[in-house]
Amino acid sequence: MTTPGRQMHLGVFVLGTGNHIAGWRYPGAAQSFEDLSVVQEIARIAERGKFDLIFLGDNLATEPGMHPSFAARFEPLTMLAALAATTTHVGLGATSSTTYNEPYNVARAFASLDHLSHGRAAWNAVTSSGGKAAENFGRIHPEHDARYEVAEEFVDVVRGLWDCWDDGAVVRNLETGQYIDPAKVRTLDHKGRFFQVKGPLPTSRTPQGQPIILQAGSSGPGLALAARTADVVFAVVQDLEEAKAGYVALKSRMPAFGRHGDEIAVLPGVMPVVGRTEAEAREKLNTLQGFVNTTNALSMLSSRLGQDVSRFPPDDLVTELPLPDSSHGFARAMLAKALRDRMTWRDLFNLTGAARGHWVICGTPETIADTLQQWFEERACDGFNILPAYFPGAFDDFVDMVVPILQERGLYRREYAGTTLRDHLGLARPRSRLFAS
Amino acid sequence: MTTPGRQMHLGVFVLGTGNHIAGWRYPGAAQSFEDLSVVQEIARIAERGKFDLIFLGDNLATEPGMHPSFAARFEPLTMLAALAATTTHVGLGATSSTTYNEPYNVARAFASLDHLSHGRAAWNAVTSSGGKAAENFGRIHPEHDARYEVAEEFVDVVRGLWDCWDDGAVVRNLETGQYIDPAKVRTLDHKGRFFQVKGPLPTSRTPQGQPIILQAGSSGPGLALAARTADVVFAVVQDLEEAKAGYVALKSRMPAFGRHGDEIAVLPGVMPVVGRTEAEAREKLNTLQGFVNTTNALSMLSSRLGQDVSRFPPDDLVTELPLPDSSHGFARAMLAKALRDRMTWRDLFNLTGAARGHWVICGTPETIADTLQQWFEERACDGFNILPAYFPGAFDDFVDMVVPILQERGLYRREYAGTTLRDHLGLARPRSRLFAS
Repeated sequence: MTTPGRQMHLGVFVLGTGNHIAGWRYPGAAQSFEDLSVVQEIARIAERGKFDLIFLGDNLATEPGMHPSFAARFEPLTMLAALAATTTHVGLGATSSTTYNEPYNVARAFASLDHLSHGRAAWNAVTSSGGKAAENFGRIHPEHDARYEVAEEFVDVVRGLWDCWDDGAVVRNLETGQYIDPAKVRTLDHKGRFFQVKGPLPTSRTPQGQPIILQAGSSGPGLALAARTADVVFAVVQDLEEAKAGYVALKSRMPAFGRHGDEIAVLPGVMPVVGRTEAEAREKLNTLQGFVNTTNALSMLSSRLGQDVSRFPPDDLVTELPLPDSSHGFARAMLAKALRDRMTWRDLFNLTGAARGHWVICGTPETIADTLQQWFEERACDGFNILPAYFPGAFDDFVDMVVPILQERGLYRREYAGTTLRDHLGLARPRSRLFAS
Repeated sequence: MTTPGRQMHLGVFVLGTGNHIAGWRYPGAAQSFEDLSVVQEIARIAERGKFDLIFLGDNLATEPGMHPSFAARFEPLTMLAALAATTTHVGLGATSSTTYNEPYNVARAFASLDHLSHGRAAWNAVTSSGGKAAENFGRIHPEHDARYEVAEEFVDVVRGLWDCWDDGAVVRNLETGQYIDPAKVRTLDHKGRFFQVKGPLPTSRTPQGQPIILQAGSSGPGLALAARTADVVFAVVQDLEEAKAGYVALKSRMPAFGRHGDEIAVLPGVMPVVGRTEAEAREKLNTLQGFVNTTNALSMLSSRLGQDVSRFPPDDLVTELPLPDSSHGFARAMLAKALRDRMTWRDLFNLTGAARGHWVICGTPETIADTLQQWFEERACDGFNILPAYFPGAFDDFVDMVVPILQERGLYRREYAGTTLRDHLGLARPRSRLFAS
């Protein structure tokens, strides 16, 4: 039962070697996340599929045994800026940490990306969950709740800096020589618990007014931050009922912040493995799983769970584990699924290798469209963040086989209605709060 | 007398509204530095002129009365990344502060830009001279010499991080599933006075091995840092003899660091105002000077000199001034010129409005080429950093009228010999020092 006019939103999670840990070994797959032509091709497919946005995660530490696209990659902001020059519609979202950056630098980089892309920038405001990042910044990694206290203030400072210029401040009066109207530029003068930032930025008000805020936190503090500040939330869920409960939990928090539930689009991550027949889809997934390198998959699962899991016999059933402070949504969702489905450790690290803890859906275009439609209509989500197992083939499969069915069913746009990411998300361009009075 | 084979290097200083403070008012001039199409056009002209690099300065604070391109601009790294996607040869250089950034983030951004551009990244390592930046980072602005102590260590950490990956570390063995050879990736484990940074970066060794290091410092500590670490030095000079003395002073410091003078290209900034006749050139400059807004020009001169100069009667002669710790090369060069040439304060702020303290040269293509040739051959420099008064016209003038004469005289390349900035500068690609033993 489609609510008239309600439309799915789609994002794609970009990792050059594929979201599957061994995706680069699939015949014909791209093998590098340090190759601009690879990400340009991904962006072209996303625009062909009328996607709302492409999205890059990030991490501030690496080791050679990680997922190949985590180990050797572009820095997200520079990569998206390069894509801004060769795309026209798709939103450009990237992670930037509130734990190891300065708000002024983050606000400025995303404001610049919003100008460069004519209104397509999105910032995934995260707290850095890995303690290893701290070692690259000469710091002691702060505790989970302390990181969220910093993040709350950090996001406010960034949004405040974006508000320091009013529309129309750049007057360029050729007669008088006045370039900027000083009455339309203000300082922020933020003096908070963690940051003191005067402002303004050396960047005029951006095409979107405020670039889009993405978030992915699922802990209590993470949900509170999202309910107050996010425009898009990436969810990690493996199960329809769990997804519906999470959806309600987030949206029901929003009125307390003066916001309506429609102001956030909740997009669960999903890896679709599409075949013309069920057997072909299953065969693709089996081929991919056959490429998984046990060492890498174990290393990723250990990193996700915040503890070394190589100590467990692989064919033993997964048991309840205490999760450390630093773990995020992936850890909880994967562990819950493993216990529910009575998985062995081998099953679990294979699943982690496949989609890093995200939901994997394998089938024909019709069965996949059916499932996505069900989740969307039963209000488990407002769309999906697609995680193609490898590029470009697995993304082509989704865009060329599944997207047309969603369009046919009236669930998804056939053309972009506007040019900014706010347009795609159906969000109004806000007036600066510093000048709105 | 041309040393056989010795070739000029040319850079262009990019400010969308022109380097002249009122350049945007010149008929036909671009009027924004927040417009990607403007900087793409500048980059196209630079490649037509076979320039070594385009270059962006930066500042971490703004106010509406500044030079228009300082007040409202793109963030440099995102802008260069966007240009990386639409250019093929020209080097891409940007300023990034060692005072208000983390070495890990700076190293990573420029490594990413080097990959995105296939070997054309250059980092202008500066210390932030303006105390106003401190207010955007909740800090007390450090003193001049302390900033250079930080900068010395900062540059070493960045270069160390660039060395953490050896060539050939990304093996992508489809048979075994090994993506990275862990023996070719090391930690840096830097534990210094100001920074503790473990590394490695999540970025493999870049096309240039080490991106190019630019510097512009002219104080004692600035020269020492440049002599030890820079590949290109931007100089602020108004006078041939002064330039020759500065050239020798820098290059004579290099052997102490085990370097040869040819390993640094010294490029003085120069604003060429080109006319088909002397009268036409003079007319262009007069037109530009007629557009200068006194308030803006006074504000820029005050900012350059670190003190309010509006208190001096404009028609009084300039007198010796004590220069504060925060002042840089511009202040010294301008004040020396004003005293030497017996300028009034009005003359001085008009000169500052023109080229922000840089050398202005006005004439026909031939006389301009003659002067540049003389400076080059008398070893006052190794080339020039061109500051067109406005874009694109004043840059077109230089590339279409002066460059062909330099080429005709055998002083400057007719075609790029390679594709990386190192190729253009004639610098070898270094082996990682961590793996060179």
